[in-house]
Amino acid sequence: MEFDPLAETLSPAPRFSRRREWAAAQAISYLMQQAVENRDVISLAAGLVDPGTLPVAETRVAMERLLASDERGREILQYGTTAGAERLRRHVVRHLATLEDCREDELGVDADQVVLTTGSQQLLSMTADVLLDPGDICLVAAPTYFVFLSVLSGVGARAVAVETDADGIRPEALEAALERLERAGELDRVKLIYLVSYYENPSGVSLAADRRGAVIEIAQRWSKHARIHILEDAAYRELRYDGPELPSIWGLDDSRETVILAQTFSKSFSPGLRVGFGVLPKGLVGPICDRKGNEDFGSANFNQHLMAAVYEQGLYGSHVQQVRQSYRLKRDAMLAAADQWFGDLDGVEWVHPHGGLYVWMTLPESIDTGFNSTLFQQATKTEGVMYVPGGLFYAGEPTPPRSNQMRLSFGVQDPEGIEEGVRRLASAVRTLL
Amino acid sequence: MEFDPLAETLSPAPRFSRRREWAAAQAISYLMQQAVENRDVISLAAGLVDPGTLPVAETRVAMERLLASDERGREILQYGTTAGAERLRRHVVRHLATLEDCREDELGVDADQVVLTTGSQQLLSMTADVLLDPGDICLVAAPTYFVFLSVLSGVGARAVAVETDADGIRPEALEAALERLERAGELDRVKLIYLVSYYENPSGVSLAADRRGAVIEIAQRWSKHARIHILEDAAYRELRYDGPELPSIWGLDDSRETVILAQTFSKSFSPGLRVGFGVLPKGLVGPICDRKGNEDFGSANFNQHLMAAVYEQGLYGSHVQQVRQSYRLKRDAMLAAADQWFGDLDGVEWVHPHGGLYVWMTLPESIDTGFNSTLFQQATKTEGVMYVPGGLFYAGEPTPPRSNQMRLSFGVQDPEGIEEGVRRLASAVRTLL
Repeated sequence: MEFDPLAETLSPAPRFSRRREWAAAQAISYLMQQAVENRDVISLAAGLVDPGTLPVAETRVAMERLLASDERGREILQYGTTAGAERLRRHVVRHLATLEDCREDELGVDADQVVLTTGSQQLLSMTADVLLDPGDICLVAAPTYFVFLSVLSGVGARAVAVETDADGIRPEALEAALERLERAGELDRVKLIYLVSYYENPSGVSLAADRRGAVIEIAQRWSKHARIHILEDAAYRELRYDGPELPSIWGLDDSRETVILAQTFSKSFSPGLRVGFGVLPKGLVGPICDRKGNEDFGSANFNQHLMAAVYEQGLYGSHVQQVRQSYRLKRDAMLAAADQWFGDLDGVEWVHPHGGLYVWMTLPESIDTGFNSTLFQQATKTEGVMYVPGGLFYAGEPTPPRSNQMRLSFGVQDPEGIEEGVRRLASAVRTLL
Repeated sequence: MEFDPLAETLSPAPRFSRRREWAAAQAISYLMQQAVENRDVISLAAGLVDPGTLPVAETRVAMERLLASDERGREILQYGTTAGAERLRRHVVRHLATLEDCREDELGVDADQVVLTTGSQQLLSMTADVLLDPGDICLVAAPTYFVFLSVLSGVGARAVAVETDADGIRPEALEAALERLERAGELDRVKLIYLVSYYENPSGVSLAADRRGAVIEIAQRWSKHARIHILEDAAYRELRYDGPELPSIWGLDDSRETVILAQTFSKSFSPGLRVGFGVLPKGLVGPICDRKGNEDFGSANFNQHLMAAVYEQGLYGSHVQQVRQSYRLKRDAMLAAADQWFGDLDGVEWVHPHGGLYVWMTLPESIDTGFNSTLFQQATKTEGVMYVPGGLFYAGEPTPPRSNQMRLSFGVQDPEGIEEGVRRLASAVRTLL
C-alpha cells in the first residue's frame, strides 16, 4: 500500500447533516483548546474530579475478585445487554432506596426501569433524541449545565431560560414562561424541563425542598398538549458537604411518569469508568433502549460488573465519605480564598455551595468575562489562571446571557492551588476595576 | 417518601420525536425476546463471541500492571478526552500499519484521525448522524448488517440495496443503482456507501481484492453533488481463518478522504470492554468529535488504557491467534454438519466463509424463514434450535427482502452444540419439504 501525500483534496466537500451544523462550534472544544494552549496556568476551569479521591485501591480489590476465576472473568468480558447488567441495575435500585430513605418495595420502580449509560451524559443525550424534534422547546434554569445546552442545540431544539435565585429555579418564573409560550402559540412545542437539582453546575445552588413538588405540579398541569417531562440531572447528588439532605424531584413524583432521573458514578466513584444510569418512566424504557440499541447496543459490561463488585464488597459507601471529606476541605479553601482576595471588592458576589464542585462568582456588570474579554486574557496570559466564562451557561432566549460571571471549580486543584488560583484571579479583576 | 401504586396513568401520553418513531420496532429487540423465551434451545442466532476465547488471563495481567501504582491507577480512573486516550490511539495507528503491511509513516494518517468509540457501533451511528438528513440515501449490500439498517432508519435515511455475489457487492450493480438514482433526480441525496468488507455479517463473503479499488473509483466519480463517503465496517477483519489476506478499502483510498474505516476490539479481544475505533478523513474528525461530545464526551478511559496495556505487554497478537484457531475449528464443524445434514437436500446452499462468525444458508424459495413462518416455529418450538431470519438483512428497496435465507452463527456454541444445532435445523427444514 502506498500513500501519496501530495494527492489533492477531493472535491466536492462533504455535505453534513443539519444536526451536524447545529452541533458545530461547541464551547467545550474551545475551552479544551484553551486548556491545552495554557498548560502552565492554574485551572479553575476543568470539571475533572480530584485525582486524589480516585479509588485505585477499591478498583484493585474489585478487579481481583471479578477476575479470580476464568468463568466469572469471561462473564464480564462478554457482551452485556442494551439496558446494562441486571446485577448492577439491582444495586442501583437498592442504592436509590437508600438515597430516597425508603424501602425498595416503596420505590415504585424496579430494575427494569433502570438503564445503564456511558456516564449520565448519554442519558441526557438520548432523552433529547427520543423526545425532541427540531423546534421543540426545553425549559432550563438560568444559568444551567452548558453541555446540555449543546445537546439541545445539537438536536435543533430551543432552550428557553427561566429565572433562578438562591433556591434554584423560581416556580413563578417557570409558570410565567409557560404562560408566555402558550400566548405565543408554542406550548405544544414544550416537551421538557431540565433541572440540575443538586449543587447545580455552574451555580452551586440546589432546588429548595418546597419548590420540588411545585415544579412537578407545574409540569403536569401544563401538559395540555403533550406530556411535559422533567429531566432531573442529579449528577452531584452524593457530593453533599453540609446543608439539608434533599429528596429528589423524582422521589416526589407519585405518578413515576413525569420525572426522568439521571445519575452517575462519575463524581462519587470514577469518571474513567463512565458508568451512569437513568431511572425512567415505564413508557420511556422502550424508546431509550431502542435508541441505545442503535447508538452502541450497550455500554461496557465490564465496567458495570466492576461497579457491582464495588457495591458487593462494601467499598462504595466508605469511598463516598472520603470523597466528600476531601471536597469539603477544598470548597472551604476556595470560599476562604474568595473572602480573603475578593472580600473588599464592591459588586463581587459568590455562592456558598453545600456540595458539588463549583463556586459561581458574579463581578460588577462592567466586567465582561467572555473568551474574548480583557479579563480572560489578563487571567490566562498574565496572571496564569483559568475559569469558565459564565455566559456559556445561559440559553440565548428570552434574554441574552449575562456576561459578568465565572464558574470556579475546586475539583482538581489542591487547597494551595485553589488559594493561589483565587489570588491570581482577584489580581486580574483588580486591574480592571 | 411514599409511592401510591394506584395512581392513575398520566395523560396526555408522551409525544416522541420523529427519530424515536423511526427507530421503533427493532428486529434486534424481537430477537432478544425470542432468545429469552426460548432459553433451552440451541442458539445459532446469537452474535456473541465464543466465551472460551475471552482473554481473562490477559486482562488480569494488564489490570495488575495498570493498577500497580496509585499514580498510574488514578490516571485511568480519571476522565479521558472525547476522542479517546492518545496512548491507545497511537497503538491503533501502529496496529493499522501492521494490518496494511506498511510503515507507519506510509499510512497517511496519524493518531489525530483516530477516534475511540463504544464498540465500532458508535462510530457507525455517529457517522449516520453527522452525514445523513431524513430522506438521504445510503447504498448497502444485499444482504447487509441489520443493526446498521436500523441505524439508517433511525435517522430517517433510506437504505437502498445493491446486488452482491460470492465476491461481495457488484461494482456494475453499484454503478447501475447510482444511474437509476440520478435518473430519478435523487443523486444529490446519496451521501454514503456502507460496506462490511471482511466476512460480511450475515453472508460471510468478503469484497474481492479487485473490487475494492473499483468501489472507491465509483464513489469518487459519482460525487457530483456532494462527497459520497464509503463507510467501511471491518469488524471481522482479524477473524481470518484461511483465504487471501485482503487490503482494506481504506488502504486503497489514496486521497484518505473517501473512506471512513470502522474497526473494533470486540471480536478480536473482548466485546465487554466495548472499545472500537474509527479512522477518519480529516474533515470528519471535528464533526464526529462534536457529536461524541454531546453523546457521552468520551468512551471509558479505563478500558482504553486496558487495551493499550494489552498491546504494551505483547498480549494482543498471540490472543488473536488463539481466537482464530478456536473459530476455525467451529467454522469447520458447522460446514461439516451442513454437508452431513443438508447435503442431500435439493435447493439448499450455503456460503463457505474464510473468516467471521457466520454461515449464510439459502433454502428453496418455497420455504419462508421469517419470525412468523412455520419453519421458525418448528425450529424453535419443536426442534429446539434458533437462527436469524435472512429477511432482516435486506434494505426494503428497490426490491423486497428475500425470505428464504438464514444466518447461522458458530460463535457461541461449542463444536458439539453446532453439530446438534445444524442437525435439528435440518430436521425442521425436512418437515417442510
